[in-house]
Amino acid sequence: MKNGTKRWGFVANQELNTASGITVRGVLNMVMAAVDPEDPRSTIPLGHGDPSKFPCFRTSEVAEDAIVEAVRSAKFNHYSPTVGILPARRAIAEYLSLDLPYKLSPDDVFLTLGATQAIEISLTVLARPGANILLPRPGFPYYEARAAFSHLEVRHFDLLPEKGWEIDLDAVEALADENTAAMVIINPGNPCGNVFSYQHLEKVAETAKKRGILVIADEVYDHLAFGSKPFVPMGIFGSTVPVLTIGSISKRWIVPGWRVGWLVTSDPSEILKKTKIVDGIKGCLNISSDPVTFIQGALPQILEKTNKDFFRKIINILRQSSDICYEKIKEIDCITCPQKPEGSMFLMVKLNLSLLEDINDDIDFCYKLAKEECVIVLPGIAVGIKNWLRITFAVEPASLEEAMGRIKSFCQRHAKRPQ
Amino acid sequence: MKNGTKRWGFVANQELNTASGITVRGVLNMVMAAVDPEDPRSTIPLGHGDPSKFPCFRTSEVAEDAIVEAVRSAKFNHYSPTVGILPARRAIAEYLSLDLPYKLSPDDVFLTLGATQAIEISLTVLARPGANILLPRPGFPYYEARAAFSHLEVRHFDLLPEKGWEIDLDAVEALADENTAAMVIINPGNPCGNVFSYQHLEKVAETAKKRGILVIADEVYDHLAFGSKPFVPMGIFGSTVPVLTIGSISKRWIVPGWRVGWLVTSDPSEILKKTKIVDGIKGCLNISSDPVTFIQGALPQILEKTNKDFFRKIINILRQSSDICYEKIKEIDCITCPQKPEGSMFLMVKLNLSLLEDINDDIDFCYKLAKEECVIVLPGIAVGIKNWLRITFAVEPASLEEAMGRIKSFCQRHAKRPQ
Ligand SMILES: Cc1ncc(COP(=O)(O)O)c(C=O)c1O
Ligand SMILES: Cc1ncc(COP(=O)(O)O)c(C=O)c1O
Repeated sequence: MKNGTKRWGFVANQELNTASGITVRGVLNMVMAAVDPEDPRSTIPLGHGDPSKFPCFRTSEVAEDAIVEAVRSAKFNHYSPTVGILPARRAIAEYLSLDLPYKLSPDDVFLTLGATQAIEISLTVLARPGANILLPRPGFPYYEARAAFSHLEVRHFDLLPEKGWEIDLDAVEALADENTAAMVIINPGNPCGNVFSYQHLEKVAETAKKRGILVIADEVYDHLAFGSKPFVPMGIFGSTVPVLTIGSISKRWIVPGWRVGWLVTSDPSEILKKTKIVDGIKGCLNISSDPVTFIQGALPQILEKTNKDFFRKIINILRQSSDICYEKIKEIDCITCPQKPEGSMFLMVKLNLSLLEDINDDIDFCYKLAKEECVIVLPGIAVGIKNWLRITFAVEPASLEEAMGRIKSFCQRHAKRPQ
Repeated sequence: MKNGTKRWGFVANQELNTASGITVRGVLNMVMAAVDPEDPRSTIPLGHGDPSKFPCFRTSEVAEDAIVEAVRSAKFNHYSPTVGILPARRAIAEYLSLDLPYKLSPDDVFLTLGATQAIEISLTVLARPGANILLPRPGFPYYEARAAFSHLEVRHFDLLPEKGWEIDLDAVEALADENTAAMVIINPGNPCGNVFSYQHLEKVAETAKKRGILVIADEVYDHLAFGSKPFVPMGIFGSTVPVLTIGSISKRWIVPGWRVGWLVTSDPSEILKKTKIVDGIKGCLNISSDPVTFIQGALPQILEKTNKDFFRKIINILRQSSDICYEKIKEIDCITCPQKPEGSMFLMVKLNLSLLEDINDDIDFCYKLAKEECVIVLPGIAVGIKNWLRITFAVEPASLEEAMGRIKSFCQRHAKRPQ
């Protein structure tokens, strides 16, 4: 064997690149690389749903205190059991049961590393050979990434901008076949900022029941509703159709770095037990990492003791900043928002390229915006619809005003001159 | 569609049961279920490596303080970047470089959810179709579980009890072929409590180089060496053969519930970059959950400021308790320990079934011991060798004495009567 000609027996699994190329994180990393490091202005991140760095979005003192107490007690340094510690599961069951017509048991609750791992587990468990899953478009691309990784076929149904981003349920009916395992809904919606009504969710349940598929309800933005419609959990319809509810404290408590979430079976008829989905979830958790035990230990206090004023304050800021965002968009010719946001942290705007001179598409828009204005916005293609943009309004209102101003002057600068 | 005959389109992926059935956690859950809940004695856990519940193994105050400070600062509530925050990666690079002949850079370090996720990532990245991996027997069955999940073929090489549990390197040479990606070594050893010498590790490096495979060095028990041999990190031989080093704060700081670890490329020749393994690691991390950001934020203080006295105290307890365990085993006829432990938290004993009356095998021994004596011990089959037992000595010395006494009377009660 000569030097330099050595043959190493290891090669990376190429599928990972495909799967990971389509995450929000991946796309944002690329857009952010376009920012000019010499630019003296601060970069304003309207690309992802994490306002935790802004002082006005600091989490509640109750939550911080609960963590400190749990660490100081030294009672939670041990490994977690597979499904999570009982007090945490019980606290989540009670927290979610407040909004349900039946009571969840701690056995319905599986602790996860944020909603992220709950998604990973759900898709892994459902990925038997030949199976497919129905995902919303636009959506949250982590679903597509995990489905690709698990060889789970993806079929997309549209959310309809002209109907306030409701689900095209006819498409769901048409797409589902005997190999369809589940449909995913995200409510309050990422990326559209919509909130589904009770009536619409009821129709979702009936459609899913008719096609024999389960509903995965991603409610990571639960209770972040500030418009006319209240947040309604999908679990309400658990006796119509089995529901896997995904949630976390990342968004409502603004602590996405704490990595605690849940996967909950809202399934009073126990169909998920009978079909061994519950065993699959346990099996999958058994070969996965668990959320930090002391954060689990703090969870009962966090869920039970957080002051209503904290939630109210956050909702008020989100309402205010979504208003700013929506009003400023109206002043900009080349982007339109079809639907005033009512929840979550995002809205979608449609890009009218015919009004712009030297912008090819949404990606080009985002790159140039990052480069020229230090404002980060997510290209719509990353969430499944080309030539749209996803804008996060969950930032400090003053920064948002500044960012919208920069977007406006960017668009003016690139506007087609009248002939 | 009639009631009760509804056909649901979802079925759980059956592979999960296979993969998860062979974890230590899975086997221990079964053994623990045998404990009589009416028994007034407390259950003594000699089954797993987590002494954190014993007051004498409480983690260092420095570590607790660092966490509290990070939480109170509110600077680390945000999502983590894919590879971990820079100060944490830098701190790990410096911590590990203390024992290496070259300096690691923060770019060599990937933060993970404990060593557990570092194992998951390594095996996922190496699992291209047709690849195989060489694992030690006895070993840590999470490797087998993740390999099964990723369809990575496993080939076992033996650790040799008569040679102080050194690796059978002839077997490694014979097993490796052009599809072999890596060999795994665990040092200090789980389950055998051995510590590899510099000379043996050097031979490991040469063998791996000869066969063109990389070495995955699981050093989760790093520095937990209390015998005659010092702990030597495999990374020392990184210029002979590329090394992926796996570690965490779980064991040395006795905080397995904190879920922070690392995957580090010890590879001065950058072979892992050239073969795209590094890209694979990043891709895999990109679709995975990250360690809690504020714990990452606390890591520099934890790694740099922990008092030497804390480490010394822990080592002394481990030495003392391993001595107790080893000496008590000598008093019990039906079990023998071929090698006095020098590191980690475990030792292996061989079961002489011919001296026992009504015990069928190692599993039967562990079940009956749990049932009759409330002592939990791991059947050897769970770590790959039948009719051995893995005993954890990392418990409070008084509990260990009590447990060993119970094991002794159990063995006496079940001993074959002289003819
Ligand atoms: C729709 C949706 N689901 C899940 C997640 C992941 O949330 P977590 O931080 O709880 O992992 C996000 C995060 O942005 C999200 O937008
Ligand atoms: C050999 C070995 N590797 C990895 C791990 C996992 O460690 P961590 O707690 O850092 O995930 C363990 C835990 O017992 C172990 O024994």
